[in-house]
Amino acid sequence: MGRMVEVLPHPAREEIKIDEVLHALADPVRLHIVRELARIGPEGVACGAIELPVTKSTRTHHLRILREAGVTRMQPEGTARITTLRREDLDTLYPGLLDGILAARQ
Amino acid sequence: MGRMVEVLPHPAREEIKIDEVLHALADPVRLHIVRELARIGPEGVACGAIELPVTKSTRTHHLRILREAGVTRMQPEGTARITTLRREDLDTLYPGLLDGILAARQ
Repeated sequence: MGRMVEVLPHPAREEIKIDEVLHALADPVRLHIVRELARIGPEGVACGAIELPVTKSTRTHHLRILREAGVTRMQPEGTARITTLRREDLDTLYPGLLDGILAARQ
Repeated sequence: MGRMVEVLPHPAREEIKIDEVLHALADPVRLHIVRELARIGPEGVACGAIELPVTKSTRTHHLRILREAGVTRMQPEGTARITTLRREDLDTLYPGLLDGILAARQ
């Protein structure tokens, strides 16, 4: 049997809370991840592929905050985990929020 | 001579930083203040007039975080301080951000 990749919990769209989304976004490293995911689009990216000036455990921590807030989705694909931005969910719940944030100069 | 009201420091529009704005908004009490200020509009409101389930010093702390992040403006008017939402600055820097947040169910 192949190596199993754990399916991680995600809030459903209706469970997403604005203050948790804002908290998740209110960090330069997490904001950078979100910008990269927005640029990459719906095909997503393997967790480790976004270059970040942080340790692996810090990276894991940031990805967890984003996932638990409902900002990103992390899905197994083979033995990898692919992360995508939950753009449709966020644009439906908070129209304009993501675009406004992505418009910010870096 | 009448009682003086200190003029508090505010970041200029170009000094406003997205991660500080998001941090300022990522709190239920501060989000409530922002919703109230958006409802009240450009005439603003005296600091103490928004009903909040917090102590006076906590209220002052929250208002300070919002002001220092560039989300609100606090200006002396007579012996009172009037707080307004910096809607034009935020809408110019991050078009859609505020509307997206205000669209969130409470």
